[in-house]
Amino acid sequence: MLEDKDRTELSDLGEFGLIDRIAQSVEITQKSTVKGIGDDAAVLGTGKVKTLISTDLLLEGIHFDLSYVPLKHLGYKAVAVNLSDIYAMNGKPTQITVSLGLSSRFPLEAIDELYTGILLACDKYNVDLVGGDTTSSISGLTISVTAIGEASEENIVYRNGTKETDLICVSGDLGAAYLGLQLLEREKAIFKDNPAIQPDLTGHDYVLERQLKPEPRADIIDILELEKVVPTAMIDVSDGLSSDLMHICTQSGVGCRVYIDKLPIDHTSAIAAEELNIDTTVAALNGGEDYELLFTVDLKDYERIKDNPAIRVIGHITDKGDGYNLVAGEQIIPLTAQGWKHLEA
Amino acid sequence: MLEDKDRTELSDLGEFGLIDRIAQSVEITQKSTVKGIGDDAAVLGTGKVKTLISTDLLLEGIHFDLSYVPLKHLGYKAVAVNLSDIYAMNGKPTQITVSLGLSSRFPLEAIDELYTGILLACDKYNVDLVGGDTTSSISGLTISVTAIGEASEENIVYRNGTKETDLICVSGDLGAAYLGLQLLEREKAIFKDNPAIQPDLTGHDYVLERQLKPEPRADIIDILELEKVVPTAMIDVSDGLSSDLMHICTQSGVGCRVYIDKLPIDHTSAIAAEELNIDTTVAALNGGEDYELLFTVDLKDYERIKDNPAIRVIGHITDKGDGYNLVAGEQIIPLTAQGWKHLEA
Repeated sequence: MLEDKDRTELSDLGEFGLIDRIAQSVEITQKSTVKGIGDDAAVLGTGKVKTLISTDLLLEGIHFDLSYVPLKHLGYKAVAVNLSDIYAMNGKPTQITVSLGLSSRFPLEAIDELYTGILLACDKYNVDLVGGDTTSSISGLTISVTAIGEASEENIVYRNGTKETDLICVSGDLGAAYLGLQLLEREKAIFKDNPAIQPDLTGHDYVLERQLKPEPRADIIDILELEKVVPTAMIDVSDGLSSDLMHICTQSGVGCRVYIDKLPIDHTSAIAAEELNIDTTVAALNGGEDYELLFTVDLKDYERIKDNPAIRVIGHITDKGDGYNLVAGEQIIPLTAQGWKHLEA
Repeated sequence: MLEDKDRTELSDLGEFGLIDRIAQSVEITQKSTVKGIGDDAAVLGTGKVKTLISTDLLLEGIHFDLSYVPLKHLGYKAVAVNLSDIYAMNGKPTQITVSLGLSSRFPLEAIDELYTGILLACDKYNVDLVGGDTTSSISGLTISVTAIGEASEENIVYRNGTKETDLICVSGDLGAAYLGLQLLEREKAIFKDNPAIQPDLTGHDYVLERQLKPEPRADIIDILELEKVVPTAMIDVSDGLSSDLMHICTQSGVGCRVYIDKLPIDHTSAIAAEELNIDTTVAALNGGEDYELLFTVDLKDYERIKDNPAIRVIGHITDKGDGYNLVAGEQIIPLTAQGWKHLEA
């Protein structure tokens, strides 16, 4: 490998830096490539109806811990998070491929559990499993899912279309998946110290389900269609609200203002947060894995969404010069994004 | 995990057994799914021009050994083998996505090398890199590539369309990639025993290149188009001629007869085989990773292909009852396929 002096650590660049670097060296030559790297999904095709493609790689020890994640849930989640990327383009998923790297410690019965979860998600969201690759692995379990979807050209929502005065909206609630993860990690640590103690997760069904079995927001895409609202920008909340909102803002060349008291937080999340001594706002802003849809709409569409209980307006888009800000009462605090936590470990 | 008595080892089922099992539990509900699991690529879309999707997962220690595979070559090969699957449907690749799992032992300079190879293959085969996922890894390097392509409905060639009397054809030559791998493994073993000895790979450029930098047969698809020949069945030679021909035969419900003296073997492969004390026929039949195209054509098309130096007729399709046979002079030997070697390790 390379001498130390020629060596640049990936952690110095970070995930988004690396993606930017790759994107810059890519040249687009096919006329069927409408949008390449840089959004929730690639947009392909020469007709009016476009094909959407998104892919995720999930590695044991980085994205999941099999000591507390059941394989069935893992299969379901692996599909769900990919479908979420297709919905985030205002599209509908149609097919997936699933590739697995399996170590010999997994018997067939374990693979069946994993596929039961995969097919359950396929069934629920009406997508077909059409291919993949299976191989052995000398390390842990590897799951690679590619989701394929479609959308009419005029309905596709990118990250870069928002403008000053647009409203910032988010579906559902935030922070619960992160709190669920912290609970599972806490119980794992207790169990490690004393295997005789049974895990105590009573009353935390909601936050645990948000972590273990997230549901992509297909219903929001249906609501938007029904209400004839095409968002000006959209992304799914996977890295955390702050980070994902900043993707929209940087790509659109705008600033933003988010009101802390508007952040949607479930009451059971608040209970879990208190038990864990975690600030609910921090969980909502930086927790990640919510798989909610974060989108912006033109002011004229306010009437169409304001009464929908599944959607909350949390702020508005400002001029780029104003920066990215969080409003807490009289205070204005700059929003900060968290990158790729994995690589910094 | 499960009790031993309830445990079925994956190696008992094998790769193809596992794929069959998955395919059987999958239900197709989308009208845009033309072909799901079971061919070189999935076929999607409701229009005349179909979308083809194929995906491969490559894991360090299983599919490649970084002690002798340069990262640039690895990137090139990862793309090449995926494009090969699209050509094997008689289609043209248009885009790829590449996901990487990277351990912190890789500096940015190493990732640049890998992408240089990836983009070189994209450039050569005129495909766009349109997305992917990058993540850290606590184990080795993981590469997942999805290739997207297109083909007119009437030109798509599946594995299941061949019939009695069709001719069995193969492009290029066979066995070289396997021999290249054996040479690299030999030199690695020597180096391990005595690091002072420089690897001796003189005169083996061709077989090494076949292993390290395979080229998918885009040219064969062009030749077939030019000659107006649509094969009755096609597959790319990744597992080895025997195994891949048997996929065609079982899916088409036919038998086959392959003539040992017709197998195309490069003279440099013969030299390497002798040096390594490996039978060239065994390398050609079971070596794998040739990424040549194996296809069958109707007898009426014989005139159109017989003089092409890139294509060799190696046998013909028979009735299912005749089985899968190899003809060596007066002798008839049953062909046997090799499965998923990895999982049996």
